[in-house]
Amino acid sequence: MKNKDEIESATSIPAAVAPTASARVRLRPLDPTGVVIEDGLLAERQRVNREVTLLRGAEELERAGTLENLRIAAGRARGSRRGMVFSDSDVYKWLEALAWEIGREPSAELERLAHETIDLVAAAQEPDGYLNSWCQVVDPAWRWTDLEMGHELYCAGHLIQAGVAFARTTGDVSLLTVARRFADLIVDVFGSDGHTGTDGHPEIEVALVELYRQTGERRYLEMADTLTSRRGFGTFAGGRFDLPYYQDAEPVREARSIVGHAVRALYLAAGVTDIYAETGDEALLGSMLRQWDDLVSAKMYLTGGIGSRHHDESIGDPYELPPDRAYCETCAAIASIMWNWRMLLVTGESRFADLLERTLYNGFLSGHSLDGESFFYVNALQSRTGDRRHNWNPVACCPPNVMRLLASLHHYLATTTDTGIQLHQYASSRIRAVCPVAGPVELAVKADYPWSGTIEVEIVSTGDVEWTLSLRVPAWARAAILDGAPVTPGGYADLTRTWRVGDKVTLEIDVSPRLTAPNPRIDAVRGCLALERGPVVYCFEEQDLPADADLADVAVDPAAEPVDRGPVEPLGGVPGVAVAGVVRDLDGWRQSEYRDLRELPAASAAPTQLLAVPYFAWANRNEGGMRVWIPTTD
Amino acid sequence: MKNKDEIESATSIPAAVAPTASARVRLRPLDPTGVVIEDGLLAERQRVNREVTLLRGAEELERAGTLENLRIAAGRARGSRRGMVFSDSDVYKWLEALAWEIGREPSAELERLAHETIDLVAAAQEPDGYLNSWCQVVDPAWRWTDLEMGHELYCAGHLIQAGVAFARTTGDVSLLTVARRFADLIVDVFGSDGHTGTDGHPEIEVALVELYRQTGERRYLEMADTLTSRRGFGTFAGGRFDLPYYQDAEPVREARSIVGHAVRALYLAAGVTDIYAETGDEALLGSMLRQWDDLVSAKMYLTGGIGSRHHDESIGDPYELPPDRAYCETCAAIASIMWNWRMLLVTGESRFADLLERTLYNGFLSGHSLDGESFFYVNALQSRTGDRRHNWNPVACCPPNVMRLLASLHHYLATTTDTGIQLHQYASSRIRAVCPVAGPVELAVKADYPWSGTIEVEIVSTGDVEWTLSLRVPAWARAAILDGAPVTPGGYADLTRTWRVGDKVTLEIDVSPRLTAPNPRIDAVRGCLALERGPVVYCFEEQDLPADADLADVAVDPAAEPVDRGPVEPLGGVPGVAVAGVVRDLDGWRQSEYRDLRELPAASAAPTQLLAVPYFAWANRNEGGMRVWIPTTD
Repeated sequence: MKNKDEIESATSIPAAVAPTASARVRLRPLDPTGVVIEDGLLAERQRVNREVTLLRGAEELERAGTLENLRIAAGRARGSRRGMVFSDSDVYKWLEALAWEIGREPSAELERLAHETIDLVAAAQEPDGYLNSWCQVVDPAWRWTDLEMGHELYCAGHLIQAGVAFARTTGDVSLLTVARRFADLIVDVFGSDGHTGTDGHPEIEVALVELYRQTGERRYLEMADTLTSRRGFGTFAGGRFDLPYYQDAEPVREARSIVGHAVRALYLAAGVTDIYAETGDEALLGSMLRQWDDLVSAKMYLTGGIGSRHHDESIGDPYELPPDRAYCETCAAIASIMWNWRMLLVTGESRFADLLERTLYNGFLSGHSLDGESFFYVNALQSRTGDRRHNWNPVACCPPNVMRLLASLHHYLATTTDTGIQLHQYASSRIRAVCPVAGPVELAVKADYPWSGTIEVEIVSTGDVEWTLSLRVPAWARAAILDGAPVTPGGYADLTRTWRVGDKVTLEIDVSPRLTAPNPRIDAVRGCLALERGPVVYCFEEQDLPADADLADVAVDPAAEPVDRGPVEPLGGVPGVAVAGVVRDLDGWRQSEYRDLRELPAASAAPTQLLAVPYFAWANRNEGGMRVWIPTTD
Repeated sequence: MKNKDEIESATSIPAAVAPTASARVRLRPLDPTGVVIEDGLLAERQRVNREVTLLRGAEELERAGTLENLRIAAGRARGSRRGMVFSDSDVYKWLEALAWEIGREPSAELERLAHETIDLVAAAQEPDGYLNSWCQVVDPAWRWTDLEMGHELYCAGHLIQAGVAFARTTGDVSLLTVARRFADLIVDVFGSDGHTGTDGHPEIEVALVELYRQTGERRYLEMADTLTSRRGFGTFAGGRFDLPYYQDAEPVREARSIVGHAVRALYLAAGVTDIYAETGDEALLGSMLRQWDDLVSAKMYLTGGIGSRHHDESIGDPYELPPDRAYCETCAAIASIMWNWRMLLVTGESRFADLLERTLYNGFLSGHSLDGESFFYVNALQSRTGDRRHNWNPVACCPPNVMRLLASLHHYLATTTDTGIQLHQYASSRIRAVCPVAGPVELAVKADYPWSGTIEVEIVSTGDVEWTLSLRVPAWARAAILDGAPVTPGGYADLTRTWRVGDKVTLEIDVSPRLTAPNPRIDAVRGCLALERGPVVYCFEEQDLPADADLADVAVDPAAEPVDRGPVEPLGGVPGVAVAGVVRDLDGWRQSEYRDLRELPAASAAPTQLLAVPYFAWANRNEGGMRVWIPTTD
């Protein structure tokens, strides 16, 4: 195996996303080893991930046979391969999570698990660099024959991301060496004179760019660009799904809208944004901006969740956003966070950090139980009968994806430019940054965010020069005050000063609860309102209703002011919100679905106070119905 | 082959559903050879089916390889089998359609097609009676090994129904002989000492009851009962779908609600109702009544369509009725018509004839283009971008199912009891019936139904005795007048007289257009109204809007009276209906999906007249959006 020095790096930043020095980015990630989330909701999620979820991952990968598949491929075990064709990627995502977590804080147990598993992965690799337990165990002739649904390059992408993560956090390049050998084979096979196909499931693109960034080898970037440019010519025509599903209906540079399988669309978008960052190909950025605008104007759920259809896990038509049959795969939320972080780096625009925040606190966190033991694959905004998170899934893409994002959450708090530091996400934290003008700077942030909107930033260390501290003021805020003066929501509040150690600034964002209305074109939630508090979307759980009330019969008074109602203890003390509403008596409708408008039954309604809890925390108590959107009393 | 006389019949009625003399039915079907639909919408659909659709069926079955599969099985051709595992059933349903059509009116061409195809089917049968081209051509070892998804008994059921249809209409028992040989094998294999399984897709139950009725052999009825009684014990646990999908979650006699795959649920319900009729097992009828109540109170679309989910083609949760993602498979509408006819025979209650009518004129007819050339598999109640009917489908269950129902539509108009004749569906028609009290009776019905509500019934022939003529007065009617006197909608108006030849009665049903409101629990159409006219559900097509208006921005005034607006010529002169509404200006919402309730954009709306056309006739002109449910201006 090579050691770290033998692999030349084009980047000096050991973060999950690490643009090269010449990348077209307005903002640069920090070295995450200098960032610690110390307290609050995000710290608690990282703790649970470390202490519970990552270890469950090891058990479940064993129980599902996913690790055993690699042992069989490595000749260390005998038996039949189990699980989905793409299940190797579950191991790689879990390894990536281990890498970020070990980088965050060493752990003998996690390091042992990582070492053993990397050794296993290396042992399973073929002499020519190929690595895929389905092909190796089930059918060696299958190699590269099912690009539509085979997920070979997809799995390779996750292997590469894991290899890069270990190289960046522990300096151990053993997994990166495995990944590079496979990547080199892929470049040989899929390079310009070779196989002209691309993968039915994007993912390798974002991985190959990072491999380029990690190794300095431009051919990986070129391979990512080539694979991307092969899309949109109907290669997958006649396949199991339609062309948009595979991101194969329009060439990426010409795409007018965001379509198809949500995770495929969003992984590709993350990769394309990275390719733009490293190549400066403006057609790619133009496509990304068009797709993002299309997403947020007509195809995204209030939770940041994406994917309106179960049938093909796809983004639906514009305004097709059913709350009950929302798909909103947890992986799609994670992919959206990946994409928005890259768009933020490239553009420096706060709207991308706003959407990252919306997705993080809602459509992403809902996928992980508070105790860290179970997961939602689908994150609906309404359930009539209640849902239960699963310990693991036959398609287990989401759980290890949750783990790798939680283990690297601190990568996404802040950035630097030549002239300053930008805070995008708020948490009680220590942030060390090196900015060309200011030199090394350390900030101490105190923020019981998202529950409180008060953010105190103290300068712990700074050079004696002028630099700019930028604080994101979310667009959802009704008001915000920075050191006593109002600032406009929807951008960054910039403070350019010659900072001194001990200087403090306080940003106060109004996080008081508010009612939110949907675009009238969103048919499925017409006549309803939602309740938000700061960046957190709330929901109504059946178990919080008055006895005998049915969640189907509840309505909210649009004139009412929702008010805080103190911590909901069984949910770890998250703040509840109360709002005035009614429980309608629909007895007159029994046994009939449709009535002549002239002959509607008499209606009555009993006033009540409705308790709402954060959407991400639903389905953590008793099983029962839930809804984000509530009809109005009008 | 046996001739007709060698097969003893337990029934004397050559109709699609022919209860035995001892059956627990309150109403008895007529001999359909005495019923002719002479003019109007249903006559036109029967004509188009005969002249266009049945012949297209022959071509498409050839093009798809479905007939060739049987030739390969018969050793008359070589090649690979094509199409779905259950595609033999497409041939059988088409044959059944030919049988009813030939019975309706002889046709040398249709008889030639039938004869050739029956000869082919007979040639494909194995010596032991087995017949399934998938098994015979692809894998002989597969026989009875995949009851979950293999559809072997399902295909056998359609073969039996076709065989029975020919025996009843043409007296040719050659196909019935094939069907009986297969049925005898099935009884041997699945009888009480044999294989203890049942089929993942119900259908054979309804067929075996009819085979019993046709042959008098009680073991077919017992086999149907046995297969039904094996459901509900989790035989299909661990399968591709959940237990409700296969009608395997609860024993049929204990079922509390209607669940699972819509076509499976409804074919089974038709069969169970028939088993009740022939056995008198009240637990079965109780289950049917519970399931029907559940259906119409919470799980049915306004069109009579059933099936809310694409993912597993299933009935959803109560009140889960999205108009855009409605599945409403055409086969489910047909199966619902089959079930409701049987429930009508068993109970004599008009609500079943009402639902048959609703389904016939809306969720069923929408599946067939006006020119008879193409089909909808899915019958959504909203399309944002427009849909186009298909000439045929890889899963081609619906087209021949449409054909067999259209060819037998006249079976469903009227019934007899010991003391009279009941008219359930109205069309200009001649109806001959034999009723024990009245003896042979002939009625001439004049009715431009459903467009006009005036129904004139003339007694053309009658014995000189007192008997009762019963006319259904639909529950949807606001008013109805029989010979000048008001009658109450929602039941039968009974006229008991000593009828004379030339007597006439006139029923006037108010079919003026009306606005319909949904149960407030149906989330997906909250704040919307639909427009109905008589039994016909109307819809709004984008092409009928004012120029530049978007169907997403249209709203209807709930205080407005919809009014007739004369024939819409490109749709064969179906009457249009106009209603006052507005086109809203939603420009203020551009680029945003969700807004703080305190910061909603200014709204304006331009008054307009909205033209509606019958839902079943949509997608017959230019492609474009459509919606049944329209937001109100409130």
